[in-house]
Amino acid sequence: MSLNQQQNLFQTIQRLLRMGATSNAKNLITKLHPTDIASIIPLFPAEDQDCILSYLYDIKKIADIFSRLGSSFLKNYLKNHQDYARMAKILEMVASDDRADLLKELDDVDAQALLSLMTQDNSSEVSALLQYQETTAGALMSTEIFKLTEEMTVQNAIKTLREAHKAETIYYIYVVDELNNLKGVISLPQLFRAKDDSLLKELMFNDVVRVTVDESQQEVARLVSEYDFVALPVVDTNNKLMGVITVDDVIDVIQETAQEHAMKMGQASISDVEGDGGLRGIRKKLASYMIIFLGGLIICEVITDFYQWLPPEGIFAGFIPIILRFTGLIARQMSTISIYEMSQGLFLPKRVFRILIGQLCSTAIIGFFSSLTVVVYAFFRFHDNFKLSLAIVISLFFAMFISVLAGFFIPYFLRKIRIDLTHATGPVVNFFLDILTLLLYFGTLIRIVK
Amino acid sequence: MSLNQQQNLFQTIQRLLRMGATSNAKNLITKLHPTDIASIIPLFPAEDQDCILSYLYDIKKIADIFSRLGSSFLKNYLKNHQDYARMAKILEMVASDDRADLLKELDDVDAQALLSLMTQDNSSEVSALLQYQETTAGALMSTEIFKLTEEMTVQNAIKTLREAHKAETIYYIYVVDELNNLKGVISLPQLFRAKDDSLLKELMFNDVVRVTVDESQQEVARLVSEYDFVALPVVDTNNKLMGVITVDDVIDVIQETAQEHAMKMGQASISDVEGDGGLRGIRKKLASYMIIFLGGLIICEVITDFYQWLPPEGIFAGFIPIILRFTGLIARQMSTISIYEMSQGLFLPKRVFRILIGQLCSTAIIGFFSSLTVVVYAFFRFHDNFKLSLAIVISLFFAMFISVLAGFFIPYFLRKIRIDLTHATGPVVNFFLDILTLLLYFGTLIRIVK
Repeated sequence: MSLNQQQNLFQTIQRLLRMGATSNAKNLITKLHPTDIASIIPLFPAEDQDCILSYLYDIKKIADIFSRLGSSFLKNYLKNHQDYARMAKILEMVASDDRADLLKELDDVDAQALLSLMTQDNSSEVSALLQYQETTAGALMSTEIFKLTEEMTVQNAIKTLREAHKAETIYYIYVVDELNNLKGVISLPQLFRAKDDSLLKELMFNDVVRVTVDESQQEVARLVSEYDFVALPVVDTNNKLMGVITVDDVIDVIQETAQEHAMKMGQASISDVEGDGGLRGIRKKLASYMIIFLGGLIICEVITDFYQWLPPEGIFAGFIPIILRFTGLIARQMSTISIYEMSQGLFLPKRVFRILIGQLCSTAIIGFFSSLTVVVYAFFRFHDNFKLSLAIVISLFFAMFISVLAGFFIPYFLRKIRIDLTHATGPVVNFFLDILTLLLYFGTLIRIVK
Repeated sequence: MSLNQQQNLFQTIQRLLRMGATSNAKNLITKLHPTDIASIIPLFPAEDQDCILSYLYDIKKIADIFSRLGSSFLKNYLKNHQDYARMAKILEMVASDDRADLLKELDDVDAQALLSLMTQDNSSEVSALLQYQETTAGALMSTEIFKLTEEMTVQNAIKTLREAHKAETIYYIYVVDELNNLKGVISLPQLFRAKDDSLLKELMFNDVVRVTVDESQQEVARLVSEYDFVALPVVDTNNKLMGVITVDDVIDVIQETAQEHAMKMGQASISDVEGDGGLRGIRKKLASYMIIFLGGLIICEVITDFYQWLPPEGIFAGFIPIILRFTGLIARQMSTISIYEMSQGLFLPKRVFRILIGQLCSTAIIGFFSSLTVVVYAFFRFHDNFKLSLAIVISLFFAMFISVLAGFFIPYFLRKIRIDLTHATGPVVNFFLDILTLLLYFGTLIRIVK
C-alpha cells in the first residue's frame, strides 16, 4: 500500500467507526490483508485499535498482524489488557522465528508468563531459538519444517502434504533419515510430476545447499540470491535438520545490510537515526575527527614552517583545511541521515527533532574536545597569537552547528524542488557551507585579531 | 559456493580433464548444481567448456547454465559453434523473462535467427516481452503462469497441477475468468487443506495485490518485501493476467537498487565501473565540479575583497577550498568505486587497469576545463599576478591525478590491514591527500611566485 492509499483507508475506517457503522467497518476490515491492517492500526487511538482487532475472528490473521507490529505494540497491548492467556494462544500461531523475535524484546516477566501458557512444544521451540546469536542463521530460521523420510512414496508424500497444518510455507520438501539427518531435497513441481509409487529417495537431489546454525546471515543472503532459492535448510554441526530460512526473512537481511552499507558510505550509521548510538557512537566518530585534526595540524606546520615568505598573518590559512574537512564530514553524515529518513518515509517532525537534538549534542561534545585541542596547540605553537586561536575556536564551533542544519535540511529542499538528491547533495551542500563557514571564519578573525 | 570452493572445484575438474578421466569428470559434473557449473565454466578454455557442456544430458540444466552465464557467453558460443538449431531448443527451456534478457543483448541477426527456429508460442512470447521498457514490471515478468478457472474443484486443480509441465515455479495459483481477467489467488497450503469438491472461487482471496505491466520495478520490490510475497501477478490496464514476477528476480532488483544508491551516496555510479558512462558521465560530473568551482571563486572574492588587511600574497588562501573540495570529491568517487569492486569480488588487475584509465581520462578532461576557467578568472581578476594562476593550474591538475590513485588504492590497503573500510576510508584518504596536495600547492607556488 502506498502512503496515499494508507491515508485513505485510515480515514474511511475512522469515519465508519465514528458513525457507528459497525457492520460496514467489520466487512471492510475482515477483507483486508494483515499487512494493510498492521500498517494503519498504529494511527488509531487505543480503543479503536481494540475495536478493529475484535472484528477479526481469524486468530491466524490476528497473529500475523501482531508479528508485523513488533514487540513495542505487543508490550503496550499486554500492559492495557493483561490478557496473557489469549495472547499466548495468538502467539502460538505466529511462525517460530517471528515469535522468538517478539518475545526477545519483551520484559523477562512478560516473556516468561507467555511462555508458561504455551504448549510444551511451542515454548521449548522458542527457548531454543532465543539462544542463537542475533546475526546467525539460527536466529533467522523457523523451526516449522515440512520434512519426510526417504522410504515414503510420492502418493503418500502428497497425502501428508495435504494434511500438514503447521507448515505455513511449503516450497521444498526436505528428506531426512530416522535420525533427522538431512539427506535430500525435492521441489514441489518435481514431486508433482513424479509417478505415484516412486520413492522420495529416488527423486531427491542429494547435494543439498545448507547452512549451519552459526553461519552468518550475510552468507545466507548470498546463497539464497546466488542460487535463486526460496528457502534454505539449516542444520547443526552433526547435519541434523534444525530449521528453515525463508526468502522473506532473507530480503529483510539484504535490505538492512544495504542500508547499513549506504549509511557507512556516507560516514553515518543506522544508530544515528535509531538514537541508540550514545557515547559509543561519539567515540567511533571522534576517531574520524582526530584524523582530520592531525592532518590539519600537519598542514598548518607545513604552511607556517616551510614557507617563511608568508607574512605572519598568513598562518590563518593553515586552519582552512581543518574547518572545511570538519564541516564537510558533518554535512555528509547529516545528508546521509536525511536522505535515509526520506527514503524510509520517516521524515516526520517529532523524529526530525529528536535526531537533530541528538546530532547537535554529539557535535557539541566533539566540538568541545576539538576546540580544546586547538587552544592547546595554538598556545604552544603561536603563544604570541592567542587571538588567532580564539577566532578559530569560535568559528569552528559555530561552523559545526551550521553544518548539522545545512547537511540535514538542504537535501530536503533539493527534494522539494525535485533535484536528484543523492548526486547533487554533496556539491550543493558544500557550496553553501563553504561560503558561510569562511565568511564566519574571516568575520571572526577580523573582529578579534585586527 | 565461496571463492575458495569454486577454486577447488575448478582445479579438480581441470585435473580430471587433463588426466582423461572422462567418466569421473562426467560423474562429478552431472551432480553439480547449475549455478556452480555456471560459476566455474568461464574459468576454462573454450574446448574444455564444450567438453563440460557435452557431459550434461539434461537439456533443462544446460538451459539453466546458459541463462546464468548471460548473453556475452551465448554470443561467443554461437560464434564458435554456429549451431543455431540446438541453441534455439536450449533457449526454449529457459524461463521467458530470462530468455528475453538473453536475446535482447545479442546482435539482431543472431536474435532473429534463434527466434525463427523456436515454436510460434515461444518466439511470440519473447517478442512481446522485448517491447516493455527496461525498468518496468513487464520487463521483469515471466509469461509462464499457472492459472486456473473459478469453477474448477480442488481435486481437479491438484490433478492439473501435477500435469503442468511448463510452470517451473508454482507458489500461488492464480484464478482467472474465461476472459483471462485476474479474479483471485490461492496459496498452495490453502489448496491442499481444502476439501476435494470445493470450488476454487469459494477458496480464493479476491483482493489480489497486483501490478500493471508498466509499474516500476522499485514498486514491485516494495510490494514483495512489504507483503512477504514469493510471487506477484502482473496485469495489463484491463486487468488481464499477463505474467508473474518471482521473488528471485525481485532480489536482483533490490540488490541493484541498493548498489546504485550506495554508489550515488559516494557521488559515483555503476556506469563508472561498467565503462559505459562516456561523455554523458563526464557531463553529469562536470556539473558537480562547476558548483565547487563557483563556490570557490565566491570564497576567493570574499577573501580578497572584504578583508583588505590581508597582504597581497594572501589571496593564495582563496584557492585552498577549491583544491580541497576537488580532491575530496574525486577521492570520494574513487573510494566508492574501489569499495564496490572489492565487495563484488571484481578487484582484478585487468578491470582495475581499465577503470583507472577511464577515470584518469575523464579527470583529465574535467581538469582541462577547470584549469581554463582558473586562467580566465585569474587573468581578469589578478592580471598583475599571472604566476599565481599558473601555480594553481599546475597543482590543481596534478592533485586531481593523485586523488584518483589515492582514492582508489587506499581502501585496498586499508582492507589488507583489516580496517573497517567504509567508515575509515573518508578521513584516512583525506588525511594523506590534503597533506600531499597542499605540499604540492605551496611547493609550486614557492617555485613559481617567489
